[in-house]
Amino acid sequence: MSIAFLGLGAMGVGIAENLLKAGHEVTVWNRSPGRDGHIVSAGAASARSPLEAASDASVAFTMLSDDAAFESVLGGDKGLLQGLPSNAIHVSMSTIAVSTADRAAAAHKAHGQRFVSCPVFGRPDAAAAAKLYVLAAGAAADIDEVEPLLTAIGQRTFRIGDTPSQANLVKLCGNFTIMAAVEAMAEGMALAQKGGVGKALLHEVLTGTLFDAPIYRNYGRILVEEAYTPAGFKAPLGLKDMRLAGEAAETYRVPMPLLSLVRDQLIQTIAREGEEIDWSGIGKTVAGNAGL
Amino acid sequence: MSIAFLGLGAMGVGIAENLLKAGHEVTVWNRSPGRDGHIVSAGAASARSPLEAASDASVAFTMLSDDAAFESVLGGDKGLLQGLPSNAIHVSMSTIAVSTADRAAAAHKAHGQRFVSCPVFGRPDAAAAAKLYVLAAGAAADIDEVEPLLTAIGQRTFRIGDTPSQANLVKLCGNFTIMAAVEAMAEGMALAQKGGVGKALLHEVLTGTLFDAPIYRNYGRILVEEAYTPAGFKAPLGLKDMRLAGEAAETYRVPMPLLSLVRDQLIQTIAREGEEIDWSGIGKTVAGNAGL
Amino acid sequence: MSIAFLGLGAMGVGIAENLLKAGHEVTVWNRSPGRDGHIVSAGAASARSPLEAASDASVAFTMLSDDAAFESVLGGDKGLLQGLPSNAIHVSMSTIAVSTADRAAAAHKAHGQRFVSCPVFGRPDAAAAAKLYVLAAGAAADIDEVEPLLTAIGQRTFRIGDTPSQANLVKLCGNFTIMAAVEAMAEGMALAQKGGVGKALLHEVLTGTLFDAPIYRNYGRILVEEAYTPAGFKAPLGLKDMRLAGEAAETYRVPMPLLSLVRDQLIQTIAREGEEIDWSGIGKTVAGNAGL
Amino acid sequence: MSIAFLGLGAMGVGIAENLLKAGHEVTVWNRSPGRDGHIVSAGAASARSPLEAASDASVAFTMLSDDAAFESVLGGDKGLLQGLPSNAIHVSMSTIAVSTADRAAAAHKAHGQRFVSCPVFGRPDAAAAAKLYVLAAGAAADIDEVEPLLTAIGQRTFRIGDTPSQANLVKLCGNFTIMAAVEAMAEGMALAQKGGVGKALLHEVLTGTLFDAPIYRNYGRILVEEAYTPAGFKAPLGLKDMRLAGEAAETYRVPMPLLSLVRDQLIQTIAREGEEIDWSGIGKTVAGNAGL
Repeated sequence: MSIAFLGLGAMGVGIAENLLKAGHEVTVWNRSPGRDGHIVSAGAASARSPLEAASDASVAFTMLSDDAAFESVLGGDKGLLQGLPSNAIHVSMSTIAVSTADRAAAAHKAHGQRFVSCPVFGRPDAAAAAKLYVLAAGAAADIDEVEPLLTAIGQRTFRIGDTPSQANLVKLCGNFTIMAAVEAMAEGMALAQKGGVGKALLHEVLTGTLFDAPIYRNYGRILVEEAYTPAGFKAPLGLKDMRLAGEAAETYRVPMPLLSLVRDQLIQTIAREGEEIDWSGIGKTVAGNAGL
Repeated sequence: MSIAFLGLGAMGVGIAENLLKAGHEVTVWNRSPGRDGHIVSAGAASARSPLEAASDASVAFTMLSDDAAFESVLGGDKGLLQGLPSNAIHVSMSTIAVSTADRAAAAHKAHGQRFVSCPVFGRPDAAAAAKLYVLAAGAAADIDEVEPLLTAIGQRTFRIGDTPSQANLVKLCGNFTIMAAVEAMAEGMALAQKGGVGKALLHEVLTGTLFDAPIYRNYGRILVEEAYTPAGFKAPLGLKDMRLAGEAAETYRVPMPLLSLVRDQLIQTIAREGEEIDWSGIGKTVAGNAGL
Repeated sequence: MSIAFLGLGAMGVGIAENLLKAGHEVTVWNRSPGRDGHIVSAGAASARSPLEAASDASVAFTMLSDDAAFESVLGGDKGLLQGLPSNAIHVSMSTIAVSTADRAAAAHKAHGQRFVSCPVFGRPDAAAAAKLYVLAAGAAADIDEVEPLLTAIGQRTFRIGDTPSQANLVKLCGNFTIMAAVEAMAEGMALAQKGGVGKALLHEVLTGTLFDAPIYRNYGRILVEEAYTPAGFKAPLGLKDMRLAGEAAETYRVPMPLLSLVRDQLIQTIAREGEEIDWSGIGKTVAGNAGL
Repeated sequence: MSIAFLGLGAMGVGIAENLLKAGHEVTVWNRSPGRDGHIVSAGAASARSPLEAASDASVAFTMLSDDAAFESVLGGDKGLLQGLPSNAIHVSMSTIAVSTADRAAAAHKAHGQRFVSCPVFGRPDAAAAAKLYVLAAGAAADIDEVEPLLTAIGQRTFRIGDTPSQANLVKLCGNFTIMAAVEAMAEGMALAQKGGVGKALLHEVLTGTLFDAPIYRNYGRILVEEAYTPAGFKAPLGLKDMRLAGEAAETYRVPMPLLSLVRDQLIQTIAREGEEIDWSGIGKTVAGNAGL
């Protein structure tokens, strides 16, 4: 299959390479040049604009950092909307707003193109190892068509619904649930510590009993070791996701006090620690607020 | 070993029977009479007061519903403090306040007795199956001495520290972390649902990816099925635990906004749904607050 | 002075009439036609577009309902930016985002025009009576120039700063402080009521002692009488203001947990009671959450 | 009238002197000796125990710092319950728990005595100037009987209800409302400041428009000047009052998220700043959390 791949960040590179390995023709493009050396030497073509990359594609993937990047790739004279052939499918993997996904779906429809939203769970190492979890939403027939591609890049695909933006909503719910778990562990650890119980021990108890899940093991370890820099996922990106979840919550009229709480913790963390700290750095805020 | 067992509620019965099965002499007592039929026919002796039950014991277990019950068993003319022989060990499994455990430790010391705090994680079925997780705190030598008994009733024992009340603190942290996870799932489900994504699907995504832990599977299922009654653990008991955690947080000067949030959610749940609903009924509150 | 006045809602009508009474030539425009009958018969001219209204003006006032309305009046072929003469002053009285005011300031500068932001405190009756409080920000010389006009419409002008959007920030702070006071009264009243003390009595005590201010008297009375409809200021507009305050808080990195709380209360109120309720309807939510 | 006055702290001294000035026979007692020099030289008698002070009194006032002090004055061999003559009235002015007031009412009834709860609003200077606001609850006939005494010490008496503890509930509502106002101002000031608007200016705008009340003027000035020490009312005392309000809220099943918020802010303030800071020191916490 002829594939365009737009966005060669830490996540995109691994995904694009897996599509290449699966035997597809892949044409790549990235906003900042010089990111495509390795994948081009492995057999991918390189394009100078989203339009050029997509002009012969039957499927175009995007993996971009935020809504602004997504919209600039989509629009403009050299954008994906102009370049993508009629009836071709845009598979969007970015974590973007529900409303942005809705607008993209409408724009593609107006251009006679198709749109499937497929955000993922997983870090760059999972992307490289084709171990992502994929959340797919859009017309069932469209997802059927790209399913072999999704299988090539992930370990499991969840079908979320007929409206593309529903996958984005679920992705935001997931990231919110992570932040909530971090906040809960951080508060418990601060209490334990001031009561004379080491936080490593509390972590061992929680993950050794009822909370034996990757999130508690991995983020708990970060909290115990206070390994907040270098960031795996920076606090401002986490804050962006909480804001997007909050916008959806306001649109759908859902009060989410715990979402509001972790958003405020992220803001405090950035205000005090700067923009480079990991989003789990709310643990530092929680401890500091307790005088630790 | 000669053991007194005080408190034959749903949890206590299973634990006492496992001590009996392990070959110990067990004398039981319960506040409300008529709960000891089965265990007595299995070989336990029955006593008419804590004092009588403990008078020949080298170890006395207590498994009581709250601080008031605990203190009434401990004190008074026929209480455990009067009955327990010098140098014998009181193993307290109740979920009580840190301050109550501290007072009990001091009282036993003044009576020449020893005190070990061993609250547990696990429901009645885990108690019956000897699958509890035990949190043990107190003098190391004292825990060593009762360790064979703890092994007979649980699948794993965590050593928490030298001060008995530290085990209670960790137990309260655990229950708080459960409530936090329920609140997070409930908010996510309300958002998903109002965005057109069924909550069963969100549950499948979360537990199928990053949150593959018993708490998310089991409580998530309750939220999906809205199976809030009959209660496995009633909301007022959950509120009691959050209050005890909050008292410790105030004593140790630890701000815990997420603890405050789930406490308020429990109060609202009880205010609107009554005292019989499960503590996971905060999910009903979250949904109702969103107009669902 | 030759004045354009854009936006003849409940607030705008009163303000425009006061400018007319002060002896100025006023040309009015409103998006939906038919709102200018009274003021035109009183001597104002009527225009068919912002451009037309502003083309001879030395000062143009805008009083619009939200950011979208503001931006559509500003932009476009027939918009204010096109119509306002060089060096003329745009006095914006709308409650809009800090970022929107910043963009407007830049756009006017690029067009060789001047921009002063003057949001107000006060209801339509205060607008009609020229009793508004005016928050003015922008270049000092520009404010000096329009000061006689501000005096004609309000009882007092506060000078906020050199950057126009600072006045918008202060206006949002004011509306937030109102909501916070309503939430506090509502919680106190719910507690009093369930403890057997009527909420009218609590209101009398608070306003008769430490809280003898218009906000507590007037909004407290609404809470006591549960007079949430018809709305004086609808909950969705209040939610909009809290969102704008929240956006500024995120931009400036200021955690505001109380702002987050009242925003969630507004969302719950709208989710359960609909879009027509007054923003003080959070009092109904607080009472309902307590089972009242 | 023959009056016992128990508790010569900063508040009690002023109140007792006003009762003396009004022509009554006053016998005073204080836990720590040496506080009664001035009032005794002004004509009061001095007693060595609550019992002794009250033995000839028709009315006994108490003004004590917390529940523990209150209960120790009431109970014991030399306590007020033993000393107060049959049918005499105990007027309690302390800010104590609703449940403590309920227990005191029951105890006095059992001793054939009467109990009226009369907590006050006002600082020591208001106590000295007989300008307190008095909240009176209890049997109407009992309040009628002590009304001349209340008039001698305050500027206004509010009748709260027939159950003495209702006055304590209203007092706690009042202190909560103060903390809520301080939190709101502090958040607004942090936002204004990071947006380039001085907090003194925001304070001037708020108190010059909608929030022209003593609480906003006086506490706002403390926030502007950051005059948190020496404390007028220490943070741990404020935290105690929030805890008592929270206990009542839990008992009556009233979720109070804003109360929870200010309680957590007080805990953070004490954790970071120590026990000596004023309760308005939450303003320092709010600013610090924003990186100011």
